[in-house]
Amino acid sequence: MPRLIVLYNNPEDTDAFDAHYRDTHTPIVSRYPNLRDMRLSKVAGVGGRESAFYLMAEMVFDSAADLDEALMSEAGAASAKDLRNFAGAGVTMFVAPDEADA
Amino acid sequence: MPRLIVLYNNPEDTDAFDAHYRDTHTPIVSRYPNLRDMRLSKVAGVGGRESAFYLMAEMVFDSAADLDEALMSEAGAASAKDLRNFAGAGVTMFVAPDEADA
Repeated sequence: MPRLIVLYNNPEDTDAFDAHYRDTHTPIVSRYPNLRDMRLSKVAGVGGRESAFYLMAEMVFDSAADLDEALMSEAGAASAKDLRNFAGAGVTMFVAPDEADA
Repeated sequence: MPRLIVLYNNPEDTDAFDAHYRDTHTPIVSRYPNLRDMRLSKVAGVGGRESAFYLMAEMVFDSAADLDEALMSEAGAASAKDLRNFAGAGVTMFVAPDEADA
């Protein structure tokens, strides 16, 4: 199933980031039409190195069309707008289509 | 289940990258002890923007201990060493622990 993946850089204040993500951003994302699943991972570095990222959010949809519709929705616009309220450290997003098992 | 996630920057020559990944790198990664699944996604940008990354590889394990063991294994060392043969455009890796459903 296609995923919208958002990687958040390490914030200056992780407690404030977590609180905003939980109390404000997640409720917005939850309004995405046809959102099937939302997975959050606090990521860690490999081999003792610090991770470039703090949080990975994966929003799962049934189809690429559903994903595009979510991005174009009112919730999609509100979610993008909300980034400026808590993701000033930087954010990277991309779409992972249906993965192929290797 | 914990995942080792590797993001590859856009290569100069995608055909050469794909061939090396398929014929050389995947067989090395397949030797990771206790590897449960390997998922490959050719990623795309959001909203018409180009993606910062070309390929996302997700290596899935039953436990954090298994993941660490794979990294420390002969295959883990060979995999890291092989990066210089095809991933000169850059690579970012991190560990996503068991995700929490939001």
